[in-house]
Amino acid sequence: MVHAPERPPEGAPPVRINLYSDTQTRPTPAMLDAMMRAEVGDEQHGDDPTVHALCDRMAALMGKEAAVFMPSGTMCNVAATLVHCRPGEEIIAHETAHILTSEGGAHAALGSVQILPLKGPRGMYSPDSLRGALRGKSRHTPTQRLVEVEQTANTGGGAVWDRAVLAEIAAIAHGAGLSTHMDGARLMNACVAAGIAPAEMVAGYDSVWLDFTKGLGAPLGAVLCGTRDFIDEAWRWKQRLGGAMRQAGVCAAGCLYALDHNIDRLAEDHANAKALARGLAQMEGVEVQDPDTNLVFFTIAGTGVAAEALQRRLRMEGIAVSLLGGRLRACTHLDVAAPMIEAALGAIRGALAKA
Amino acid sequence: MVHAPERPPEGAPPVRINLYSDTQTRPTPAMLDAMMRAEVGDEQHGDDPTVHALCDRMAALMGKEAAVFMPSGTMCNVAATLVHCRPGEEIIAHETAHILTSEGGAHAALGSVQILPLKGPRGMYSPDSLRGALRGKSRHTPTQRLVEVEQTANTGGGAVWDRAVLAEIAAIAHGAGLSTHMDGARLMNACVAAGIAPAEMVAGYDSVWLDFTKGLGAPLGAVLCGTRDFIDEAWRWKQRLGGAMRQAGVCAAGCLYALDHNIDRLAEDHANAKALARGLAQMEGVEVQDPDTNLVFFTIAGTGVAAEALQRRLRMEGIAVSLLGGRLRACTHLDVAAPMIEAALGAIRGALAKA
Amino acid sequence: MVHAPERPPEGAPPVRINLYSDTQTRPTPAMLDAMMRAEVGDEQHGDDPTVHALCDRMAALMGKEAAVFMPSGTMCNVAATLVHCRPGEEIIAHETAHILTSEGGAHAALGSVQILPLKGPRGMYSPDSLRGALRGKSRHTPTQRLVEVEQTANTGGGAVWDRAVLAEIAAIAHGAGLSTHMDGARLMNACVAAGIAPAEMVAGYDSVWLDFTKGLGAPLGAVLCGTRDFIDEAWRWKQRLGGAMRQAGVCAAGCLYALDHNIDRLAEDHANAKALARGLAQMEGVEVQDPDTNLVFFTIAGTGVAAEALQRRLRMEGIAVSLLGGRLRACTHLDVAAPMIEAALGAIRGALAKA
Amino acid sequence: MVHAPERPPEGAPPVRINLYSDTQTRPTPAMLDAMMRAEVGDEQHGDDPTVHALCDRMAALMGKEAAVFMPSGTMCNVAATLVHCRPGEEIIAHETAHILTSEGGAHAALGSVQILPLKGPRGMYSPDSLRGALRGKSRHTPTQRLVEVEQTANTGGGAVWDRAVLAEIAAIAHGAGLSTHMDGARLMNACVAAGIAPAEMVAGYDSVWLDFTKGLGAPLGAVLCGTRDFIDEAWRWKQRLGGAMRQAGVCAAGCLYALDHNIDRLAEDHANAKALARGLAQMEGVEVQDPDTNLVFFTIAGTGVAAEALQRRLRMEGIAVSLLGGRLRACTHLDVAAPMIEAALGAIRGALAKA
Repeated sequence: MVHAPERPPEGAPPVRINLYSDTQTRPTPAMLDAMMRAEVGDEQHGDDPTVHALCDRMAALMGKEAAVFMPSGTMCNVAATLVHCRPGEEIIAHETAHILTSEGGAHAALGSVQILPLKGPRGMYSPDSLRGALRGKSRHTPTQRLVEVEQTANTGGGAVWDRAVLAEIAAIAHGAGLSTHMDGARLMNACVAAGIAPAEMVAGYDSVWLDFTKGLGAPLGAVLCGTRDFIDEAWRWKQRLGGAMRQAGVCAAGCLYALDHNIDRLAEDHANAKALARGLAQMEGVEVQDPDTNLVFFTIAGTGVAAEALQRRLRMEGIAVSLLGGRLRACTHLDVAAPMIEAALGAIRGALAKA
Repeated sequence: MVHAPERPPEGAPPVRINLYSDTQTRPTPAMLDAMMRAEVGDEQHGDDPTVHALCDRMAALMGKEAAVFMPSGTMCNVAATLVHCRPGEEIIAHETAHILTSEGGAHAALGSVQILPLKGPRGMYSPDSLRGALRGKSRHTPTQRLVEVEQTANTGGGAVWDRAVLAEIAAIAHGAGLSTHMDGARLMNACVAAGIAPAEMVAGYDSVWLDFTKGLGAPLGAVLCGTRDFIDEAWRWKQRLGGAMRQAGVCAAGCLYALDHNIDRLAEDHANAKALARGLAQMEGVEVQDPDTNLVFFTIAGTGVAAEALQRRLRMEGIAVSLLGGRLRACTHLDVAAPMIEAALGAIRGALAKA
Repeated sequence: MVHAPERPPEGAPPVRINLYSDTQTRPTPAMLDAMMRAEVGDEQHGDDPTVHALCDRMAALMGKEAAVFMPSGTMCNVAATLVHCRPGEEIIAHETAHILTSEGGAHAALGSVQILPLKGPRGMYSPDSLRGALRGKSRHTPTQRLVEVEQTANTGGGAVWDRAVLAEIAAIAHGAGLSTHMDGARLMNACVAAGIAPAEMVAGYDSVWLDFTKGLGAPLGAVLCGTRDFIDEAWRWKQRLGGAMRQAGVCAAGCLYALDHNIDRLAEDHANAKALARGLAQMEGVEVQDPDTNLVFFTIAGTGVAAEALQRRLRMEGIAVSLLGGRLRACTHLDVAAPMIEAALGAIRGALAKA
Repeated sequence: MVHAPERPPEGAPPVRINLYSDTQTRPTPAMLDAMMRAEVGDEQHGDDPTVHALCDRMAALMGKEAAVFMPSGTMCNVAATLVHCRPGEEIIAHETAHILTSEGGAHAALGSVQILPLKGPRGMYSPDSLRGALRGKSRHTPTQRLVEVEQTANTGGGAVWDRAVLAEIAAIAHGAGLSTHMDGARLMNACVAAGIAPAEMVAGYDSVWLDFTKGLGAPLGAVLCGTRDFIDEAWRWKQRLGGAMRQAGVCAAGCLYALDHNIDRLAEDHANAKALARGLAQMEGVEVQDPDTNLVFFTIAGTGVAAEALQRRLRMEGIAVSLLGGRLRACTHLDVAAPMIEAALGAIRGALAKA
């Protein structure tokens, strides 16, 4: 069978400290219990009360008219592109945006759009950068249609876009006749870190989605929000993309559980990330980016140890971290408790010392 | 909130006999228990052992090299088109095929292919009809690439394609250099009804998928099977379409449970459908198609009652049936016990009598 | 070199009577002279005065706001689809429409749309047939967007849609919120045959184009007309499709010449077609469709001679006719003079007699 | 009427020295004469002998198996993408490549592919840059499929890629299983400037095309070359894109004329460009890029005059230059004689002096 894109080293023990990704959180017994008790129906037929409850709640939370449940965040992004854009149009996004680097070229493949990459530190571009990228309509260039931000910026180190900057970007976009879309895969981390309510954080964004499989700990599901008309059209694309499900309330119940229990506690993940970053910063030859939220990016060029080697050594001790374009990434989440941070720091120190 | 495409009549009671569709089966406590106990991991990362177990088992059952778990049968169809076909190519299918009538134009929308509709009774076309549809390559016509069958044929009345016919169609297709795809939404109904093992039934089909949300009773999930290379490419489209999930083993466990417990019992659904058809056939003015499996299509033109009216009256008694293009459809499944058939027949008799 | 899709039989002489297609007319010396004297500029840059003159004149002739010059009629159809429709939408057209049968699946391939084929005699569907094909919006079906007619209907035998029928179809479409498009490849034949001015004939059609390479005798070019906004967008697609040219005035001058000299004379082609049809109708075993314009379709099933055999025998005498789906087609145009009709009839009589 | 993307200033006289673009050359009387004498046929039917002659000659010149005539270079690029790539695949090109900046997003819009932009001076990237951009297959990234170069590099100042670099790039691409495509809009300028035969210059490139409307002076037309199978498929896309024409030999004859008469003389254009560059370099505050071929890019930031202002002032004297992203561009071609260079330099000097 062909299964996996990345394999652990030969002889590696089971993972005991999983800093690989917050996508790997396992549903807790309490969440599973909520899922199994869910009242369900045929979601594709509009008959699943738990899915309705989740969508209604999410629309209210984001301050939008309506919402649709999707099997993944990628489908939220793809469906949004298909509703906002026509073939030959252009999306403006940061050059490290998930839609450009991690969705298999889906926006060109399925939406027939081009993405114009902007630069900027920590996965974020400036309002001025956006202004400079706007151009008039011409027969030789794609029509610009959509401005996209990713909150938090994943490869920017889980960086939190400033609320005022988001508002300015939305105003520029709307002023130029463009729509706005927020990839909110880790939006709640941003809201908790900044102490800003979701509806306020996403004001000015015509569409926004939240992923429940990252820090929120659900096994699957994301919810896309927007105007009623937008969501009607998104539902049609969900059907075409194969995202229309049946008794999806089983999964939606996990998301509802997460809204009730797993948001405030994101602050713990952020504190753990800070602690990890502090520990790393004290190690000779390690460069660490100060984390806004739950993602700690660091490089070890000055230690004489290769990043791949450290990743492998940690994995042999049951500690998983990821490697993105030469940088190591450690991610905190609800399966990572404070003592594990100390243990991980110890293991890293040991692995580097051995070199 | 915008939710549903079809609403029950004002004042209708809850559904107590659900003949609307086998998509509406609710997971049983035992299935939910299996789901809750599933060992899970990050499916998108190739780390979910329950998803692996399901895929391995399905590949073996279908006699194919590999398999991939999808959130829906529509995604199986769309991904298969995207792997088999290039833009501007043509799929040959029955004019009532799900891919043509019920997937929102997804194969044109996402796969940029045209579907050539063939005619034939009960949702099935003949080998000769396929032969007549083949044409040479020309600059003015789309290149033919894929031949598709739907086993069982839904709007053909759950009709079972004969194994020998399927084999002949596959041979014609391959002889003409075309690939073959089987939409196996209700494949297990066909296998049980015909007493033929799945691997034998689908021999000659380059790709085939099975839906777990119909008679098999799982809340969500379908599995697409094919060669290792085909599945590798299908995985890439699953990622782009937004079908890559996280702890999907929760759902895959429901599918594994269904394979263990809900296949042989499809024979009961077929017996119930036969009983329902027999009862309907005895009513004056009712025309009923003899069911091969679990779908009973009937018309009531001779009764003086409009089909919509009967559907509504039954619904007011808590009995749901569906209406497709003027025909009424009653579907049996694991939430429909034999006594309910008698009750439904009584209600229909009563409703028609009142007219 | 790979050149041609269809080859003459071994030993065939040059064609002296070309009834194959009106696409094969050669530019006359007078037309070439006009082309050579054309004032030209960079068309893609908006600087070709002859292209402007042609577009202005065509817009006026069709009673539309604006027009764009294209290298072919197929590009007019494809660009119109791309402006009118979004991916996943549906075009309603006759099942023999050029867009469905003769453009290589381009509308699915490039426009990601599905075409719903309607039936009806002589390549034309009825207003009732259109009414019956309209359906509400649903998540499972493509959104209907565009209603298309082909005036004259090529494989319908160059049949002329009645002006009142065209108006009714346009009214139904607009009433249902759909746009209308006319493939006017041979529109002028219809206008001359019906004695109706083009602007009146195409009233109610949001977009319409005329081909200059058929009966009008130009070497290349077609002009698409519509509102200013529609044409602006069509220009953008022309650029993407690769239809933006440079000193295209050389070709546009041929089209202007055709507007001045080759329209009224289409009546001669129609008279020649009538004469041919009358002659064919008198032959034993020949079934001929009475031509509205310049296309004579006939079958020879009753003669004992295969259609392919007759085509080949005529070709060996330097007479070219075409064969479409079992029917023979003879097309009259400005390279076919009345005496050639007599000669062709004689040759056909002779070829059938020999059998 | 809506015509043009760029308009001359109010009151501007006709252009007498056209340095705007080599796309604006007008066909000479001798070329027109050749066009009008051309033997023609139905090109779409494979019956145009002049189009055949051009394709055969181009295939031989480029050392490829076959060739197809297209109405524009953009259609050559788009058709090549559609043959080489499937949806969701990626093209690697320079960030200033015509396919990325000047074709309206056509490759995403029509080919559903993403373009990965590489950096590098003068519109060219290095072999190392290409090596660094290659990545393995992953479910999260588009599959890389095609490597593209533009010879000469237009916005790189008509820069000529070194033959050895081209060969190395092709070898890297093929070694990684990728195909290679050369946008040869101004390929002949490169061949003449480097003294290298076309077949040698394009060796290693699976597809290549030449534009006849730039320095070669034809009113329209480009020819795409490749293997027989590639060209067969390109023909199918030409049909779908609307590039299949009728008596296209009229235009092909202009291209044949250009091959006979307008290649060697490109050396004059290059000499004129050098002279212009030398003159500009002597002006205070002007920065000029030394031209390899016929495109002279210069900036006047140090003069105190805005680029737009200089463009406008020159235009008021009947001299046209273009402005691309802040840089002025003067292009030499067969409508620009040596004395015009002196006149243009004088006018520029005067315009800058007045400031």
